[in-house]
Amino acid sequence: MTYFPNFDKVVFEGNKTKNQFAFRHYNPEEEILGKPMKEHLRFALAYWHTITQDGGDPFGDGTYIRTWDGETPMETAKNRVDAFFELLVKLQVEYFCFHDVDIAPQGDSLEEFFQNLDEVTDYIKEKMDETGVKLLWNTANMFTHPRYMNGAASSNNADVFAYAAAQVKKGLDLSKKLGGQNYVFWGGREGYESLLNTDIAFEQDNMARFYKMAIAYSEKIEHKIPFLIEPKPKEPSTHQYDYDAATTMAFLFKYDLQDHFKLNLEGNHATLAGHTFEHELHVARTFNALGSMDANHAETMLGWDTDEFPYNIYDTTFAMYEVLENDGIAPGGINFDSKLRRTSIDMDDLALGHIAGMDVFARGLKSAAKLKEDRFFDDLKAKRYASYQTGVGKEILDNATDFEALTEYALQHDEIQLESSHLEYVKSLINDYLV
Amino acid sequence: MTYFPNFDKVVFEGNKTKNQFAFRHYNPEEEILGKPMKEHLRFALAYWHTITQDGGDPFGDGTYIRTWDGETPMETAKNRVDAFFELLVKLQVEYFCFHDVDIAPQGDSLEEFFQNLDEVTDYIKEKMDETGVKLLWNTANMFTHPRYMNGAASSNNADVFAYAAAQVKKGLDLSKKLGGQNYVFWGGREGYESLLNTDIAFEQDNMARFYKMAIAYSEKIEHKIPFLIEPKPKEPSTHQYDYDAATTMAFLFKYDLQDHFKLNLEGNHATLAGHTFEHELHVARTFNALGSMDANHAETMLGWDTDEFPYNIYDTTFAMYEVLENDGIAPGGINFDSKLRRTSIDMDDLALGHIAGMDVFARGLKSAAKLKEDRFFDDLKAKRYASYQTGVGKEILDNATDFEALTEYALQHDEIQLESSHLEYVKSLINDYLV
Amino acid sequence: MTYFPNFDKVVFEGNKTKNQFAFRHYNPEEEILGKPMKEHLRFALAYWHTITQDGGDPFGDGTYIRTWDGETPMETAKNRVDAFFELLVKLQVEYFCFHDVDIAPQGDSLEEFFQNLDEVTDYIKEKMDETGVKLLWNTANMFTHPRYMNGAASSNNADVFAYAAAQVKKGLDLSKKLGGQNYVFWGGREGYESLLNTDIAFEQDNMARFYKMAIAYSEKIEHKIPFLIEPKPKEPSTHQYDYDAATTMAFLFKYDLQDHFKLNLEGNHATLAGHTFEHELHVARTFNALGSMDANHAETMLGWDTDEFPYNIYDTTFAMYEVLENDGIAPGGINFDSKLRRTSIDMDDLALGHIAGMDVFARGLKSAAKLKEDRFFDDLKAKRYASYQTGVGKEILDNATDFEALTEYALQHDEIQLESSHLEYVKSLINDYLV
Amino acid sequence: MTYFPNFDKVVFEGNKTKNQFAFRHYNPEEEILGKPMKEHLRFALAYWHTITQDGGDPFGDGTYIRTWDGETPMETAKNRVDAFFELLVKLQVEYFCFHDVDIAPQGDSLEEFFQNLDEVTDYIKEKMDETGVKLLWNTANMFTHPRYMNGAASSNNADVFAYAAAQVKKGLDLSKKLGGQNYVFWGGREGYESLLNTDIAFEQDNMARFYKMAIAYSEKIEHKIPFLIEPKPKEPSTHQYDYDAATTMAFLFKYDLQDHFKLNLEGNHATLAGHTFEHELHVARTFNALGSMDANHAETMLGWDTDEFPYNIYDTTFAMYEVLENDGIAPGGINFDSKLRRTSIDMDDLALGHIAGMDVFARGLKSAAKLKEDRFFDDLKAKRYASYQTGVGKEILDNATDFEALTEYALQHDEIQLESSHLEYVKSLINDYLV
Repeated sequence: MTYFPNFDKVVFEGNKTKNQFAFRHYNPEEEILGKPMKEHLRFALAYWHTITQDGGDPFGDGTYIRTWDGETPMETAKNRVDAFFELLVKLQVEYFCFHDVDIAPQGDSLEEFFQNLDEVTDYIKEKMDETGVKLLWNTANMFTHPRYMNGAASSNNADVFAYAAAQVKKGLDLSKKLGGQNYVFWGGREGYESLLNTDIAFEQDNMARFYKMAIAYSEKIEHKIPFLIEPKPKEPSTHQYDYDAATTMAFLFKYDLQDHFKLNLEGNHATLAGHTFEHELHVARTFNALGSMDANHAETMLGWDTDEFPYNIYDTTFAMYEVLENDGIAPGGINFDSKLRRTSIDMDDLALGHIAGMDVFARGLKSAAKLKEDRFFDDLKAKRYASYQTGVGKEILDNATDFEALTEYALQHDEIQLESSHLEYVKSLINDYLV
Repeated sequence: MTYFPNFDKVVFEGNKTKNQFAFRHYNPEEEILGKPMKEHLRFALAYWHTITQDGGDPFGDGTYIRTWDGETPMETAKNRVDAFFELLVKLQVEYFCFHDVDIAPQGDSLEEFFQNLDEVTDYIKEKMDETGVKLLWNTANMFTHPRYMNGAASSNNADVFAYAAAQVKKGLDLSKKLGGQNYVFWGGREGYESLLNTDIAFEQDNMARFYKMAIAYSEKIEHKIPFLIEPKPKEPSTHQYDYDAATTMAFLFKYDLQDHFKLNLEGNHATLAGHTFEHELHVARTFNALGSMDANHAETMLGWDTDEFPYNIYDTTFAMYEVLENDGIAPGGINFDSKLRRTSIDMDDLALGHIAGMDVFARGLKSAAKLKEDRFFDDLKAKRYASYQTGVGKEILDNATDFEALTEYALQHDEIQLESSHLEYVKSLINDYLV
Repeated sequence: MTYFPNFDKVVFEGNKTKNQFAFRHYNPEEEILGKPMKEHLRFALAYWHTITQDGGDPFGDGTYIRTWDGETPMETAKNRVDAFFELLVKLQVEYFCFHDVDIAPQGDSLEEFFQNLDEVTDYIKEKMDETGVKLLWNTANMFTHPRYMNGAASSNNADVFAYAAAQVKKGLDLSKKLGGQNYVFWGGREGYESLLNTDIAFEQDNMARFYKMAIAYSEKIEHKIPFLIEPKPKEPSTHQYDYDAATTMAFLFKYDLQDHFKLNLEGNHATLAGHTFEHELHVARTFNALGSMDANHAETMLGWDTDEFPYNIYDTTFAMYEVLENDGIAPGGINFDSKLRRTSIDMDDLALGHIAGMDVFARGLKSAAKLKEDRFFDDLKAKRYASYQTGVGKEILDNATDFEALTEYALQHDEIQLESSHLEYVKSLINDYLV
Repeated sequence: MTYFPNFDKVVFEGNKTKNQFAFRHYNPEEEILGKPMKEHLRFALAYWHTITQDGGDPFGDGTYIRTWDGETPMETAKNRVDAFFELLVKLQVEYFCFHDVDIAPQGDSLEEFFQNLDEVTDYIKEKMDETGVKLLWNTANMFTHPRYMNGAASSNNADVFAYAAAQVKKGLDLSKKLGGQNYVFWGGREGYESLLNTDIAFEQDNMARFYKMAIAYSEKIEHKIPFLIEPKPKEPSTHQYDYDAATTMAFLFKYDLQDHFKLNLEGNHATLAGHTFEHELHVARTFNALGSMDANHAETMLGWDTDEFPYNIYDTTFAMYEVLENDGIAPGGINFDSKLRRTSIDMDDLALGHIAGMDVFARGLKSAAKLKEDRFFDDLKAKRYASYQTGVGKEILDNATDFEALTEYALQHDEIQLESSHLEYVKSLINDYLV
């Protein structure tokens, strides 16, 4: 039984190939800077966009043609696992990610939901063992159900807090069972619909309590893996507390949580917050908090999250350059939080979309590696900041001066020689690094 | 000699008055919640927009008709002081703010600039003594001169760092001399033009060094007043490091500076960062960091800083509500970082603009006070978060539970009763509180 | 049988009332500028947001508690009609609007859908006769079903064009049957998902053909009412052809359709296009094309259509001022294209939301009428443009001069006296007109 | 005497060159689709950004180091001509563009300004004859001087209208003298600062009168060249009447001016209006109104006009594809309305910036040509719209059907077969066309 009869294992054929089910750029075992591509890229498939997504949007019903529906919800759930793993293997993707509600029907009670999760994860575990695919991360969906309309840990309703705690506890149990490498929190409703009825400090205190309980529980079950917060500024919330990388760090510092969390950064979330993706990755690095990546294309002319498959070489080059500067993304990875356009309705598009994304990340990696090997940015920055290597600059870096000494110096050196950045030339050169 | 011959002291005449040089709402001594209005509002005039601003914009030359030009730069500088204090007194405004470059000509050397500053501030001090007007805050302009094209403390050029240090040292000296109540840092160029040639961590490390030297110097001269950082996300920078309130807090935490700084928040800067002004004020409160306010109107349909005079009653009501929640803004104040429209070219417009701003803040204060007296938001929130006052909610607040206990609870309570927020009704009621 | 047991007919009680089911400002029979309020405002209820909407959003399931579900789709459809008309009557709203799919189940075929429409509209007609409520406009939903994923009249698929034609033909038939006063086209998918696979001219030619067929058919059935296009810039489309008022007019002119269409303008659509609502209304007036209004609040800090109930007095004042300038909105009206927040889950909120919207439009009308009676804007503009009443200005208006004569004049008059706009003062005065 | 001593004529050396003053991609005589590159690209240098621009921004003074200052304004003006033509020749650019105020000092009267213009254009004409460089277009700056604070043709002041008429008359005279190939109108202040004091219809009627006088005058002097309007949505205006391509067309249609004008489209102006550049070019084509192009890079994360030099290969590829579809841009061209970053302070950067821009447009042209030669988009669209080639689709295109016939058809064909757009695959393939 196959869900994807039109293609077999997708392999590298180079950019002359006419085979649409081939990689034109991604060559998993090709060495880049001393490591196989696949170790740099650590691609993951997202269960939700791959399986659960139906092509609906706020003004339209689902469009996708999908072939996995069974007689019962649980049969459908298992068919989906089969399809998902078939796709993972055929695409040579070694990691996956899921929300609890993606994989199993919620049934009529929390208890039934947990039973369904147990049953489906038993099956997933078999598949993992069989294929070698690994769990990059899982998470709990605490935003779709009406109970979460005012948030989960930040809800005004204590029963909702408790329900969320149960979901995350279960999520950590499943993570341990499946050998999850990270655990993600995306607080889509942890924020406010209206500031008028919101006490931010109260709600954030509760979020901090929630995280501390999660840490305690993960320690108790001896499954201490990186916890990742995924920033997003808004949508569905009017304001989401984990607005962007820096905002999330401020929260973590306030509650002394900074050593327990890293960030899972997404391209489209960055742009909704007014940043480029590379900015968010770079900022995370300054806090030693670059944990993992949700890869998608940010359509900056639109004001909502489009989660398009990546296709822009600039974006992937700059993103992968940040990953190289970070000495890699592991134990995080590059999760395709990417959704087919509403008109890409075929099962085959699930492969075509991911192939496109993997190819453009491969190109980004190769371009970034060339920039790195050539020391393009390294030399540029070394030259640019050179004045801090000697004299008054060195004293500044050595914390060996003060305002009075600097004033004396400035009074003698108030004619400052400026140097051109030649930014236009710099940008032009970068174009010739793109592969 | 008068610079504003068309009006005398502006006084409260009520909203039936046809006198354009009267307050229709601001009544300085009127008691609101047990304090005179003027103590709630602590208005300040900004030297730059009042005096230095000429009505130019990126596509046009200055338009304002101004009458203070003298024979020499220093004569002009003193005329401006006269005009400024005449306006302060006539408007019954008790505070003012300035950048170093606003008040004195920069001359041909740093030394000469300092001498000019000394001379002009001697004159300003006289005026302060004479009028009782006080210095809310001063700051150093470290963004206009070409030397700052790559930043000040974050510049790639160590000589620029030194020059900036000299300016801030002088700024603190002047603050002490004039009894300044706060000192402000606005890092308009502390950020990047392009991420391609920028090492954020290097630059932010230097900013932290700079701030630590400033703290040390203020302690040395025994002038330990609140230091205020003014967040802005961009413009002129592509990205400014002090993006918004939360981002600035993350920076302060990272460098353990959070106890030395508060925030000076501005309406238009908030919206450029994607936030409402009240959001930024509220967030600052959660960090106990609401220091002062730069008041202006944010034209959210435009993507640059318009610094319009405030006129929207909703905005001032919600802003003043945050101030009331903060137990006042002192020792900060409400500084009119507001610029006349390019077509408001008369000297009189300087009065009309500020009267407009003061009146709408008076309305905001009165509206906010009514909401407070009626416990409108207090009761709304108390009811909304009531579930945390007993039972499982109370255990959460008391840190007396954990994921396992909450899971047990949730399994028994998975049918959660939701309550309507009635948000439309709430917003409608607020309209009837506006005065 | 009642669907809204908690309130009876909502009447004006003034702004001191504590009764939440009362108008605090809307007093239907109160005369404003010689006409009862209700004739100025011509409120309509939207079937979709009132009845079909369930509180779902892209990240969440429906939340609203609704009580009209029957045993069969047709029974539900009729229950909904009952509830809708009960609400219309209790709210004293005299008009309504609907999409075809809102009122009747689509069944298994187009034929069945048409039969269902016939049956439900028979019932609606009874209700209309019974209550005196009138149809402001209806429209065809040509965006939700997957068949419309690439547009309707602009679809790449000719069968879809045909299907759309059938829907609009039926819509016009129903309009005639129910005495509809306008007919609306909202082309949510008439635009592109990606320009890469789009031929705009081809698609717009087809749209023009479609409109011409609609005109021909309405003439044939002798039901020539205003056709209204509702501009929106994007969402769900990446680009929607009817981007804004001016763009829509360009399209109409290109195809010589300008005499057959007016515009149905919406607040939130305006802001998504970068305009204020009053801008769009004013622009429409310059083309003599202000047809009707979809009233809602535009949350300009968010990049998607929130369709919030109106609550901002400035917005309704400026909108109603444009309506007064237009000599009224009839035969159009003010349709509440407003959606309850996701947390306003009760049936009662349907009343509370509309009461809030009606009250704030009543305030806007009263404020605008005061501005009009006082000739506030009339005098301001007369004075501002006065130079065109005589001399060279008059020659310009009379088309009685040319470049050569004007050059002669300018060479003699190159020192031009400028006058202040006093914009800050103007805005401040407006505040005192708000009721 | 040379202003650019560091380089001679810039020539094509291929992308391996280390010479920064060489073209790595632009090879003027290389044939692309049967024409030399330079005929496709028709590059022009903009006098303002090349010469007048000083690196200032709203928060900073000028930074650029320039070497052309003379003893008198007129001497400076002539030095600038020398420098400009030296750069044109060295860069192998054959066209240029200017505003009147760019090239000559305005002096103390309009008469003196005209005399200065005559004198400088005499000199420019010599240079043109000597070098073969041609005038792509000129324009009148009617936005910088305070007199234009309320617009030019749309000013509330009739004397300003007259002054503007004199400037444009002179501009047309100069165009004739210099053999200008187009004449441009950019109405930076033709719009409003505030809608509150604006009568759009009055102002637009005057603009139309102005344009009609310009047409009459150009006919009178027998210099009937394309008039181009340059759309921009805002900045410095709050709203600019020529918002975007479609809005400008609506204006032209309204006043029956559409046969006299085409559009001069700019990348950054497109994005400020919420569009991609290729969208604006494509829309202009649908109106047969693609006149010329102002090339620059649009920094979509920023809300103001950055006028960066182009560097993005996607943008230039899609732009040049539209140019190819238009059968070329002549008699328009590609004018670098591009400004060096404030930190690119050297004279050399003027060359480096333009080389960067020319190279990336050369790459765009080559990529677009490959897409064209391969019929990539042609085949894609032919297949996509194929249903209109036969049957009901053909009847629609032939205007040979109506709503009744289509309804009959739809009732028989209501199960519509949808086809996937495979958009992700399409975008991925395009990446492999980039050169």
